[in-house]
Amino acid sequence: MYPKTSETKVLRDPIHGYIHIQYQVIWDCLNSREFQRLHRIHQLGGVFQVYHTAEHSRFGHSLGVYEIVRRMVNEVEDINQSLSEYEKIQVMCAGLLHDLGHGPYSHFFESLQTQTHEQRTCQLILDPHTEVHQALYRCDHLLPQYVVDILMHRHTKALMNQMISSQLDADRMDYLLRDAYETGTSYGTFDLERILRTMRVKNGVLCMKESGMHSVEDYIMARYHMYWQVYLHPDAKSYEILIQLFFSYYCQSDIHIPVFECLRHEMTNEEFIEMDECRMMYGFQESSHCEDKILREYAKAILDRHLLEWQEDPSEEEIQAIKKKIEAAGYDPSLWFVEEKKKSSAYLPYTESDSIIWIWTRHYELKPLSACSEIVKALLRMENTLEKRIYYVKL
Amino acid sequence: MYPKTSETKVLRDPIHGYIHIQYQVIWDCLNSREFQRLHRIHQLGGVFQVYHTAEHSRFGHSLGVYEIVRRMVNEVEDINQSLSEYEKIQVMCAGLLHDLGHGPYSHFFESLQTQTHEQRTCQLILDPHTEVHQALYRCDHLLPQYVVDILMHRHTKALMNQMISSQLDADRMDYLLRDAYETGTSYGTFDLERILRTMRVKNGVLCMKESGMHSVEDYIMARYHMYWQVYLHPDAKSYEILIQLFFSYYCQSDIHIPVFECLRHEMTNEEFIEMDECRMMYGFQESSHCEDKILREYAKAILDRHLLEWQEDPSEEEIQAIKKKIEAAGYDPSLWFVEEKKKSSAYLPYTESDSIIWIWTRHYELKPLSACSEIVKALLRMENTLEKRIYYVKL
Amino acid sequence: MYPKTSETKVLRDPIHGYIHIQYQVIWDCLNSREFQRLHRIHQLGGVFQVYHTAEHSRFGHSLGVYEIVRRMVNEVEDINQSLSEYEKIQVMCAGLLHDLGHGPYSHFFESLQTQTHEQRTCQLILDPHTEVHQALYRCDHLLPQYVVDILMHRHTKALMNQMISSQLDADRMDYLLRDAYETGTSYGTFDLERILRTMRVKNGVLCMKESGMHSVEDYIMARYHMYWQVYLHPDAKSYEILIQLFFSYYCQSDIHIPVFECLRHEMTNEEFIEMDECRMMYGFQESSHCEDKILREYAKAILDRHLLEWQEDPSEEEIQAIKKKIEAAGYDPSLWFVEEKKKSSAYLPYTESDSIIWIWTRHYELKPLSACSEIVKALLRMENTLEKRIYYVKL
Amino acid sequence: MYPKTSETKVLRDPIHGYIHIQYQVIWDCLNSREFQRLHRIHQLGGVFQVYHTAEHSRFGHSLGVYEIVRRMVNEVEDINQSLSEYEKIQVMCAGLLHDLGHGPYSHFFESLQTQTHEQRTCQLILDPHTEVHQALYRCDHLLPQYVVDILMHRHTKALMNQMISSQLDADRMDYLLRDAYETGTSYGTFDLERILRTMRVKNGVLCMKESGMHSVEDYIMARYHMYWQVYLHPDAKSYEILIQLFFSYYCQSDIHIPVFECLRHEMTNEEFIEMDECRMMYGFQESSHCEDKILREYAKAILDRHLLEWQEDPSEEEIQAIKKKIEAAGYDPSLWFVEEKKKSSAYLPYTESDSIIWIWTRHYELKPLSACSEIVKALLRMENTLEKRIYYVKL
Repeated sequence: MYPKTSETKVLRDPIHGYIHIQYQVIWDCLNSREFQRLHRIHQLGGVFQVYHTAEHSRFGHSLGVYEIVRRMVNEVEDINQSLSEYEKIQVMCAGLLHDLGHGPYSHFFESLQTQTHEQRTCQLILDPHTEVHQALYRCDHLLPQYVVDILMHRHTKALMNQMISSQLDADRMDYLLRDAYETGTSYGTFDLERILRTMRVKNGVLCMKESGMHSVEDYIMARYHMYWQVYLHPDAKSYEILIQLFFSYYCQSDIHIPVFECLRHEMTNEEFIEMDECRMMYGFQESSHCEDKILREYAKAILDRHLLEWQEDPSEEEIQAIKKKIEAAGYDPSLWFVEEKKKSSAYLPYTESDSIIWIWTRHYELKPLSACSEIVKALLRMENTLEKRIYYVKL
Repeated sequence: MYPKTSETKVLRDPIHGYIHIQYQVIWDCLNSREFQRLHRIHQLGGVFQVYHTAEHSRFGHSLGVYEIVRRMVNEVEDINQSLSEYEKIQVMCAGLLHDLGHGPYSHFFESLQTQTHEQRTCQLILDPHTEVHQALYRCDHLLPQYVVDILMHRHTKALMNQMISSQLDADRMDYLLRDAYETGTSYGTFDLERILRTMRVKNGVLCMKESGMHSVEDYIMARYHMYWQVYLHPDAKSYEILIQLFFSYYCQSDIHIPVFECLRHEMTNEEFIEMDECRMMYGFQESSHCEDKILREYAKAILDRHLLEWQEDPSEEEIQAIKKKIEAAGYDPSLWFVEEKKKSSAYLPYTESDSIIWIWTRHYELKPLSACSEIVKALLRMENTLEKRIYYVKL
Repeated sequence: MYPKTSETKVLRDPIHGYIHIQYQVIWDCLNSREFQRLHRIHQLGGVFQVYHTAEHSRFGHSLGVYEIVRRMVNEVEDINQSLSEYEKIQVMCAGLLHDLGHGPYSHFFESLQTQTHEQRTCQLILDPHTEVHQALYRCDHLLPQYVVDILMHRHTKALMNQMISSQLDADRMDYLLRDAYETGTSYGTFDLERILRTMRVKNGVLCMKESGMHSVEDYIMARYHMYWQVYLHPDAKSYEILIQLFFSYYCQSDIHIPVFECLRHEMTNEEFIEMDECRMMYGFQESSHCEDKILREYAKAILDRHLLEWQEDPSEEEIQAIKKKIEAAGYDPSLWFVEEKKKSSAYLPYTESDSIIWIWTRHYELKPLSACSEIVKALLRMENTLEKRIYYVKL
Repeated sequence: MYPKTSETKVLRDPIHGYIHIQYQVIWDCLNSREFQRLHRIHQLGGVFQVYHTAEHSRFGHSLGVYEIVRRMVNEVEDINQSLSEYEKIQVMCAGLLHDLGHGPYSHFFESLQTQTHEQRTCQLILDPHTEVHQALYRCDHLLPQYVVDILMHRHTKALMNQMISSQLDADRMDYLLRDAYETGTSYGTFDLERILRTMRVKNGVLCMKESGMHSVEDYIMARYHMYWQVYLHPDAKSYEILIQLFFSYYCQSDIHIPVFECLRHEMTNEEFIEMDECRMMYGFQESSHCEDKILREYAKAILDRHLLEWQEDPSEEEIQAIKKKIEAAGYDPSLWFVEEKKKSSAYLPYTESDSIIWIWTRHYELKPLSACSEIVKALLRMENTLEKRIYYVKL
């Protein structure tokens, strides 16, 4: 028996109604400074520059993933019976903490550092000086390591890795629903209740009863639409590219903005924990007063939303014409023009290359989704066209 | 100027917020006995036997189609400018009245009669004795004919036919949203607002701006899922097959149930107007007391929801075994066993064989959806497998 | 241990997500013809004449009440521990079956019969010939009587009576949410989750933790608004008054409409079960062809929605003037004019005269809601004004 | 004619579906740095410490108020006809800009400065150096002054003042709906559509048709519940009190945290614009490393959510006991104990002392809401009890 809170704590949540917390270790992780910091990291980076209400942070999402995992281990009978109480705690902690290592404007941030956010998450959990490590350790000395095992996808029970990271995991299910809610779009909705009701474990593998396959198809389409309409929206990308331009210029210069100095090298955990989006904003404010004109311009563009222009699939002539106009307006194209090639594979609704959604058929066989669903079969045949997009200063 | 109601009438509606009525002719059609009758025809036939809350009638749906058409002619700038006030009234009336000729449990009913429901609708609108004809005629002597032209898809302005009946018409848009709401499923939801915002008329053809294409993809998937999960649910079909069995037995017999006698021949309009689902239910009650045992059993099965069993893709041996069991239980297989072959084309999310959704591309060209959307391109390649389903008395 | 269904049956429901059925006896009651009949009784009588989508039946509502009771006995810890498995079954059955004895257009119907709908419900449950009796009896010979005890509010465990019928019972909670959903109004919404989470049993009495008091206030206001905006809407009443006028005329006449003959005396259970709203509609159709002009006019008004006019608080002069106009138009005021006095006590949001909502205070005392809530204290002081409304034929 | 954007710009919004922008001046105000700054001011101060998803900023709310005003001037016929195009622009700008002068954690911030946020808003709008001033001025030289007049409630057309600030204004209507959505509570919902539909102008006064009175009652109850359940939640207050303690200590000390120095005097507009909640957070981070132990502790409590404990209505003995415990734990009660007296008038659902909701009765008279609504009449009699709450360091 692991220590429980005196009574079930409930936190109101628009996606799940309530988040339910029964174990002390969950409560302690939630109250650690590393977790509280997540309130200061936007869930969707620059998307709030397009969908103005998408201001929610990774804090709520992390609680949401935890809640879905909690429901899985309690309500999905097959999972409930496959796991011990200790394993349930491990996987709930992994759900709660999976995003701990996200830096500000995550994807850009990873490009500045050699570590991925997954690696930073694990480093924070294993560091005896962090409050989150101490919370886990107090519950059980081996708990930090088990949580890391799940997050690194190498827990001996494959099921537990799958619950946190796979084609149909608690992470994606929460963020699709939550991001749809916060942006006010209807794209991300799908039937979570039915997915939980038709989830099974067969041969140690997380799978879906065939009767729930339509909910899975719906979920895949939700994902596809959210990617196209929200996550990869060019104006949101444009904001993140501005930040990227700022730092690639800053790091190659010898300008000294104190809060940004730590970005020149691999950060310590302590430096990382302080580096949230508020601190970034302060740094941009400082930069907007610095002596370097270009850094000032980048900083103001970020603070006051002077987004870059963009164009899809321009011809080579169009590109040259734009570059000329940039120069004519007194800007250096090497600083204010960016070309982005994107593989539309990122835009594919579903692939089975890395991980597979398994279906438990009415004839009691385990088959890949693509072998059962006519829709998915068709989608997998979608072509992988290469597209190009350019971004440049608004003239 | 066509006569308006003293002030805009508004009817509360869960799908559209409010239905807005400004023209007297709409108000008069709504108050005709032929339209009021629609309250006594279920929108979804036997689906309420599966989704118990799907008890809504064609009345609300008809209002909803009208409301979408009303918004199209007012809010879609291209349509607003393409049509005269009179044409707007024509198409709004067509939206409101398009389902007037539905008999009880529509699809089954058509199999008993030589007329389709579209033909009956037109017949009712053109019949000088109906209140709905009189309402239209009072507004303009030619209005009944124009409304029929639209419903027969031969109005000279193609746009108006398309608004009422095409791959992306007001009819389908309302019923998907409404049926999803009333069944409590999330499958049917899509972004109506965005579709209306990106609707255009180019070369006299209703089309969608490319930037709204994702909403259309979403709508197509909504349709696909509603067909599989709701409209074609085997238990709902099973209920309709019971009714079919009842009448094919009744019509070949010489049993006399007064309210059903008119079904033996082509009905007059007056007979048709009275023939609603309440009258049918009364007829089943009467039949449940008649002397013929078989008709009694059918009637009771309908009234008390003794649905038929069903099985997908049975082998020939399974079929023979089932028939033997039926006989052993004292039933006649020719009366209590039905085999249904279904073309899954009915189940395809979208085809361009009969009608096309046109996209107005960012390069100002009109292209079929299938030429623009990778998703739709993939879906059109879905295979057309033949499936079989059998229904038989529960033993 | 009482027999369970082979697996939990779930029915999709827009209000509760899913209805969950685990016990065979619940499943059998649901499949009885007396319960299936509820699909043919509107939940809200004539309200669909105002809110056109309010076409839902007592079938869905009955399932909803059952589901709330099921959640209470499982999720409210105090109730879970207060009741044996058998008692839980009793109270779930009572929730499911509480509306079984409703006739068509319930409130009007009671005025024709000497029995209340509660008495008819009990009579049906105790009658050995009904399928519902047999289903209960199969589970346990005493079950029918226990269910009746709860419905008559005389079960020895007061708690169980309260769950089904009190100021804050499963019945009202379901219908407020459901009727708000089906009419498309927002008035009836309140926080069911929070009410269930703060529900307690103290000294054998169902009560609410003080921290949930605001949800209760919200629920009371929801009720108040639903009464004024929906349930007591004059146009809905007008439709029910038409039906009343029809039958008071019919019963005093010697006209013979076969399906209505049974209304002249106290009905048997068998007659009652067949008397649903479909049969009524058929009767009105028949009446619309009868020889008596007045009955014909009443019948057509009902079928084709020729509602009565109404006026609030008319002066005596206004009344006389209206009666004169009615006569001048060739109508008999004694047949086409109705005066209705209404006690606005029916319109009060909450009283403690018949039953009390108990609050379990943070000082561990049981107090009436009115002693804790400033809002409710204020509402109880609302005055009890007498109002008058007249209804008369549209001229 | 005032310049319009090339096409209507629409911004997706979860509360209003879309925000519609037609005038260039609105678009320019939106893109000013003073308006973009609102993304860095939480709408609900410390409420996100209780309702973890309440992370939305004043940016979205400001757009929402603008949208409601835009709908009022277009859709409410009486307003549409009472105002010139120029006046409509004035009042839409006032709606958009009304919150421009909010400092971080607004209510606390006002206690540090001599100016109210309303005064700062006006100062920013009138300052020729702000982008927002320039945007307004470009449209019309007098526009900044007219907008200020509305915000100071002294525009010569009373109606325009009322639309922005009164008991039933666009500001409150947006924030109730928005805050309810973002917290995930149902308390704040009311029927905005119906309120807009029944809004009238009579004798130059904004009022409501009697038939919309129930929607107003519903709105008042929504407000009441949001105050009790969300805005005045003790944990949210506790967070704001921590910030207050921090600054009252800091301002009396000679500690030097650069970003906070400007708070020691009345700020310039330029200083104010930079002072957002990100900068505050950075200041707390800096303070958490400073030499002063007490300031360090305050700063960590704020950053890591070590909220104060609180207790309602403690007795004098309880207070003394708590203070002793605080001292025993090594804390100075003068620094870690706060007593708050609150007039529950703040908690009253509605008063008519400062401003009145007017009802246009069915007898064509203008009466205060309290003279028409039995519910409001009752609520106004609610008593004004004085309560006390204490906050102190968690031990």
